[in-house]
Amino acid sequence: LLNRSCFAAASLRPFSRSSAMAKSKFEYVRSFETDDTCLRNCYIVVRLDGRNFHKFAEQHQFAKPNDDRALGLMSRSARSVMEELEDITIAYGQSDDFIFVFKRTTTWFKRRASKLMTHVASQFSSSYVFYWKEFFGEQPLLYPPGFDGRVVLYPTNHNLRDYLSWRQADCHINNLYNTVFWTLIQKGGLTTTQAEDRLKGTLASDKNEILFSEFDINYNNESAVHRKGTTLIWEKRNETVSKRIKRPNEEEQQVPVTRSRRKVEAYYCDIIGDQFWEEHPDVLEDDT
Amino acid sequence: LLNRSCFAAASLRPFSRSSAMAKSKFEYVRSFETDDTCLRNCYIVVRLDGRNFHKFAEQHQFAKPNDDRALGLMSRSARSVMEELEDITIAYGQSDDFIFVFKRTTTWFKRRASKLMTHVASQFSSSYVFYWKEFFGEQPLLYPPGFDGRVVLYPTNHNLRDYLSWRQADCHINNLYNTVFWTLIQKGGLTTTQAEDRLKGTLASDKNEILFSEFDINYNNESAVHRKGTTLIWEKRNETVSKRIKRPNEEEQQVPVTRSRRKVEAYYCDIIGDQFWEEHPDVLEDDT
Amino acid sequence: LLNRSCFAAASLRPFSRSSAMAKSKFEYVRSFETDDTCLRNCYIVVRLDGRNFHKFAEQHQFAKPNDDRALGLMSRSARSVMEELEDITIAYGQSDDFIFVFKRTTTWFKRRASKLMTHVASQFSSSYVFYWKEFFGEQPLLYPPGFDGRVVLYPTNHNLRDYLSWRQADCHINNLYNTVFWTLIQKGGLTTTQAEDRLKGTLASDKNEILFSEFDINYNNESAVHRKGTTLIWEKRNETVSKRIKRPNEEEQQVPVTRSRRKVEAYYCDIIGDQFWEEHPDVLEDDT
Amino acid sequence: LLNRSCFAAASLRPFSRSSAMAKSKFEYVRSFETDDTCLRNCYIVVRLDGRNFHKFAEQHQFAKPNDDRALGLMSRSARSVMEELEDITIAYGQSDDFIFVFKRTTTWFKRRASKLMTHVASQFSSSYVFYWKEFFGEQPLLYPPGFDGRVVLYPTNHNLRDYLSWRQADCHINNLYNTVFWTLIQKGGLTTTQAEDRLKGTLASDKNEILFSEFDINYNNESAVHRKGTTLIWEKRNETVSKRIKRPNEEEQQVPVTRSRRKVEAYYCDIIGDQFWEEHPDVLEDDT
Repeated sequence: LLNRSCFAAASLRPFSRSSAMAKSKFEYVRSFETDDTCLRNCYIVVRLDGRNFHKFAEQHQFAKPNDDRALGLMSRSARSVMEELEDITIAYGQSDDFIFVFKRTTTWFKRRASKLMTHVASQFSSSYVFYWKEFFGEQPLLYPPGFDGRVVLYPTNHNLRDYLSWRQADCHINNLYNTVFWTLIQKGGLTTTQAEDRLKGTLASDKNEILFSEFDINYNNESAVHRKGTTLIWEKRNETVSKRIKRPNEEEQQVPVTRSRRKVEAYYCDIIGDQFWEEHPDVLEDDT
Repeated sequence: LLNRSCFAAASLRPFSRSSAMAKSKFEYVRSFETDDTCLRNCYIVVRLDGRNFHKFAEQHQFAKPNDDRALGLMSRSARSVMEELEDITIAYGQSDDFIFVFKRTTTWFKRRASKLMTHVASQFSSSYVFYWKEFFGEQPLLYPPGFDGRVVLYPTNHNLRDYLSWRQADCHINNLYNTVFWTLIQKGGLTTTQAEDRLKGTLASDKNEILFSEFDINYNNESAVHRKGTTLIWEKRNETVSKRIKRPNEEEQQVPVTRSRRKVEAYYCDIIGDQFWEEHPDVLEDDT
Repeated sequence: LLNRSCFAAASLRPFSRSSAMAKSKFEYVRSFETDDTCLRNCYIVVRLDGRNFHKFAEQHQFAKPNDDRALGLMSRSARSVMEELEDITIAYGQSDDFIFVFKRTTTWFKRRASKLMTHVASQFSSSYVFYWKEFFGEQPLLYPPGFDGRVVLYPTNHNLRDYLSWRQADCHINNLYNTVFWTLIQKGGLTTTQAEDRLKGTLASDKNEILFSEFDINYNNESAVHRKGTTLIWEKRNETVSKRIKRPNEEEQQVPVTRSRRKVEAYYCDIIGDQFWEEHPDVLEDDT
Repeated sequence: LLNRSCFAAASLRPFSRSSAMAKSKFEYVRSFETDDTCLRNCYIVVRLDGRNFHKFAEQHQFAKPNDDRALGLMSRSARSVMEELEDITIAYGQSDDFIFVFKRTTTWFKRRASKLMTHVASQFSSSYVFYWKEFFGEQPLLYPPGFDGRVVLYPTNHNLRDYLSWRQADCHINNLYNTVFWTLIQKGGLTTTQAEDRLKGTLASDKNEILFSEFDINYNNESAVHRKGTTLIWEKRNETVSKRIKRPNEEEQQVPVTRSRRKVEAYYCDIIGDQFWEEHPDVLEDDT
């Protein structure tokens, strides 16, 4: 990046009389901005996807089929987003994508779609680089990664839950496939082409059967974070800290103090059925 | 972040019969996504702004009124964006904001506004953390910073140039103010309140006069990057590298080879007048 | 409107070789059209308002404060719209505005906002002129009237009912005001300025009191169509027609045949409370 | 349409205390309306299409391939739209569709797309019924017709002219086809199926040849309004009216007075080439 100042610039002096006047002449350009306020009373979902993460994973030697360091970093970055944008009530991630759900009554950024999705994308991306070392230690990050995003609105709790279910069903299908595929290669000695051929046309039950009968693997015992993805929600936790207190006419003493704190918690469980939602009734707002 | 798997999950077995069937039941949620294609034949401008950068600057001891490390890092991150999204033909930055102009005929991401702005925001933010050390050395980055963005369309060259002019006029006004303000404090010994009072109601000419008569500073000799901001464009450069070549019946020898390469170049000059645009006719496309 | 053909046209012959080829050269312009699909699972409301109806009412000697011919024509036109666009489940009108609610799952025009609102505006306007004579008899329509429209989405039943309640509350406030205002003029002999002054700052109770104590009018006995506006919904009705039937070995005879028919019905009642909605449970779809 | 008032309504008395307060409770619904302002400095095109006009044409015995009464009524209605919305600078119609171009700097309805397109659709439709008798005399209009509309933006003169060219090329292709098709039937005695078969795969030149060699028809001599469609623009015309004037010390006398008036004029000529645009330089605004 060369540092070339333009020598002609000073003599042009476009602001000789009044710089404020000059600026006001151009100010009309602001009116080209169009309003992209999200429809009120709808859940606002921001979804992020890694850009060229297939290549990124290879260049950074991600383990197959799942790299726990990479998954941990994704979750850490998602938590950073939730802590920054507090109206996000639930986030769900799998592989290289993460979705963030703003509560339906949020007024963050006046519900402007562009502001919401760019802030999420930005905070997630800077966090991904910032926390890299926590998960990858001395292995260097080779270049700054990119994510793209979008906004989708859901008018009802039913629609929102179906959206999250769709993502988790997707996680399940992909992870079952990837688990069998890489087991066939890593333990079965097949080439990638042979593994692909072997899996062509198989159903979920066939894949479970291959794992069980050939490799003695019960898929349901595989890691929950791989099978179910990561769900982040806010929870109230009691935190006990010890505090030094000096009461009148008493010795100063160490006392335990318990406070309720809102924290982001991670779950690796089914969110398609009702149980999760019954156990966390605060995540969704009432439709009526 | 606790690691709590939900034990109930396995027994729910929502995919017992067919996981593909389960997924397809939810797939309708995709149709809630709305199209946000940018109007064809318009310049697509993505503008980024730092979130809470006033506080960020203080916490990282940015120099006043301008911190060249911070400005360098902004430009470095912007260059990273341009190299990743090659249809950006010009970018302009000042202080903690940067704007990126896609050529009017771009088909990146099928011109989907959400994808364009989130990718820019993401790439910029990950680069900001990634290149931090290049500009701040051992001074640590305390937390991952955030940027928000938006998209604005401009139908004609005239409108686009007015938009860029508006940004540069804004840069001028702010920098002149900040220069006098901090000179009054740093060299004149005023408090911030006194400096504010002193500048209340002053015109550009008054500010120039204060600098000149009281502090012997000719504002026009101040650093161009501060007065004019940073303009990034693509340029063809000839690059000469030396290559070992072996021709038949000859000794292998070292020969210079010149190739034309497209590179992002930085300018710190006036972009309101015509000169810059006449010297770089490829930046804008013809209206007709 | 002159009828001037351009003589030069024939000799230009822009289609000499292939008209299809010529057309295809321009066809790219279609891609400038942007998608305006309404968010799924939301009620789509189209609202129409008369353009300059104050003047229109004067020029056509509408009775004050309400002209039953004009209100009848509005309702007749709205019914014409509902019969043409069958996914409209409820319509509500007062004065010179009418709103139409499409069911939340409608797929008319693929939910394209522009198509829905223009078709409603068009059908309403052509009907207004077409049915004029039915309500105004020999009094001529002086010029074709105009209506403008807009689309608003409501995600829940609660929001939609609040929208309709807002319109009916507006109807009530306006009609109470207009009733007192014109009574003061027509029966009380006040000028318009005097009537305005008299009503300045009065509450609903004051207005009711003026009507009752000075003019012996109980506002609640005023015409329901004026106080409550017009609500149109679809209803199943049994219709008995007489039909000639010839059974084998019998004389041909006239028999009554009852069929269920869907018809647009008008109500002039409160739609803010629950009763109307409990009595017509099919108008709204379930949120869940 | 029954006239059934709901007797329960009066006793509900939802406004007993304060109707203004009741209304304000619902007023939040207004914020669900979203902004649909058209991008500045672009041409705003509203296009109308007849709904089910194939059937409408049959039921009203439109002549084949072109009915001059129907085309005249379309143009009359379009003129009514232009006279009502004066910022429309050009309109073009063929068959049962008409397009209206607002000048790029228009501020009608604050450039709100919904208002612009519904007002055009409404005014056109009410005019169509209002002026029916002028073109169809005693032949009754059987029911109120409907039109649907849409808005498209064009950023440059070049794009706008290509859009108009596309419509006129479409007119040409359709009219040439229809002319041959109906000539084969009406003069050649073919059935519709036979005529379709005959035309399958023919080029424009083939169709011209059929007309010329078999029916002695030179297509270029056919009516311009059918071949080129109808273009409406505003023009300044001098109008001379005779006025009675009485000057002091003179006899009252009849004098001719000439005034310049803006009127909508119709053209039936090529608008693809440059000639039309050179002869009417005021229709388009400068891009720069």
